[in-house]
Amino acid sequence: MNFKHKLERIIEKNNSLLCVGLDPDLDKLPRHILKKKNPIFEFNKSIIDATHDLVCAYKPNIAFYEAEGLNGLSQLKKTIEYLQSNYSEIPIVLDAKRADIGNTAKMYAKSVFDYWNADAVTVYAHLGKDTLLPFLEYKDKLTIVLLKTSNPDSGTFQNIVVDRKPYYLYIAEIIKKWNFDNLGLFVGATYPKEMRDIRDLFPNKIILSAGLGAQSAEIKKAVNAGVNKQKSGIMLNVSRSILYSKNPRWKAKKLRDEINKYR
Amino acid sequence: MNFKHKLERIIEKNNSLLCVGLDPDLDKLPRHILKKKNPIFEFNKSIIDATHDLVCAYKPNIAFYEAEGLNGLSQLKKTIEYLQSNYSEIPIVLDAKRADIGNTAKMYAKSVFDYWNADAVTVYAHLGKDTLLPFLEYKDKLTIVLLKTSNPDSGTFQNIVVDRKPYYLYIAEIIKKWNFDNLGLFVGATYPKEMRDIRDLFPNKIILSAGLGAQSAEIKKAVNAGVNKQKSGIMLNVSRSILYSKNPRWKAKKLRDEINKYR
Repeated sequence: MNFKHKLERIIEKNNSLLCVGLDPDLDKLPRHILKKKNPIFEFNKSIIDATHDLVCAYKPNIAFYEAEGLNGLSQLKKTIEYLQSNYSEIPIVLDAKRADIGNTAKMYAKSVFDYWNADAVTVYAHLGKDTLLPFLEYKDKLTIVLLKTSNPDSGTFQNIVVDRKPYYLYIAEIIKKWNFDNLGLFVGATYPKEMRDIRDLFPNKIILSAGLGAQSAEIKKAVNAGVNKQKSGIMLNVSRSILYSKNPRWKAKKLRDEINKYR
Repeated sequence: MNFKHKLERIIEKNNSLLCVGLDPDLDKLPRHILKKKNPIFEFNKSIIDATHDLVCAYKPNIAFYEAEGLNGLSQLKKTIEYLQSNYSEIPIVLDAKRADIGNTAKMYAKSVFDYWNADAVTVYAHLGKDTLLPFLEYKDKLTIVLLKTSNPDSGTFQNIVVDRKPYYLYIAEIIKKWNFDNLGLFVGATYPKEMRDIRDLFPNKIILSAGLGAQSAEIKKAVNAGVNKQKSGIMLNVSRSILYSKNPRWKAKKLRDEINKYR
């Protein structure tokens, strides 16, 4: 099943555009979990079990696992295996932000799709079309190009004006011409104007977004700007405010419902 | 010892600007090595033992290890440990091309410098200054920003004209103003004009380059454009044509001497 179809099914089933970021930070895990043999996996499992009927995707950011070396990465493997054994209908977006040239890009694509077995991956397009092809050759997977990130300094380079347009939009227009079916876009939820520009340019593409604020007004803006005509087509990622909440299930439900209010 | 000092010492000791890329591709390893328990590590070890007195650095590209999953990454760990136990004077550049925002960039920096224990890393600056700081906080390490990659399509986005300058140069000028001591630059050896622009802008910074052609004329151009006033300050990476040569030592020596001819 291709990614788009898989995502549409789970969005409908769970009535949700909420993606939960599985970004376990050892400094923040509860003490009783830290005592276990595989604390990262155990923590993820508890979050997954508490939220699986409220989400449209899970998004592990591989940096949090790499920070713990081979031990962390083996717990990412366990997490993915757990998800695929128990909740195979939920897509896994590996947030790896990879990009390299020719032969090396092939190795990264092999890693994320064949080894990690992710349904989607985040990448940079900055190196050119030839460096995206090895990812896009996996037709059933979604390759998500980062256009506009959510951090404060993201404008320094991403909003440089080229031909009276910001750089992120200029490159988005080139990417659009390439006309790939299985390409998605990333836009930070902190930039609703940019989100709207991207949605207008790609009415039918899947958008991944992150950095959603806690305030209702911000959620409204991001949802309004990001949904497609069917009030869908976007995964809105939340990590910390769910993971380290006293009640992750309650928090995830609250966010899912808040997002749905503005669809 | 900081990176610059470490690099200067080995350049002098081995009279070499040659960096060897440790990019083991299982499809290309000799059959007798594939039969061993840790073929990637054994292959790397054979290359290192054959070339350690001819190089100024080793550059494993992590994609080749990630393609083999945890098993590949554990052999990267063995390779780094082998290098640091036996040839600790040779810097290790982890070619990981990482980039992410705030908290996540911190995790990547922790991974490459604390876990992998690399001396230098390659990163993208595309997300802005705040995303580079976690790497640059490791003062003894070198954080190498990718400005112009060596692939055919690299011009599509990297050479977009901004303010009558190509984008790679425009962002290089901003990066220069940040004035970080422990920042290096990457420029593909296939673009000597771009290399010269970058060297002119950063007369004292370390440059990493790759994609060096086999032809003497190309080597001459890249070396001429990339060396600093002391005829040094650049690591010229070669991977495949050494790794899969019938005689890696002979090939490395030939390349080292060829590079030195044009210094």
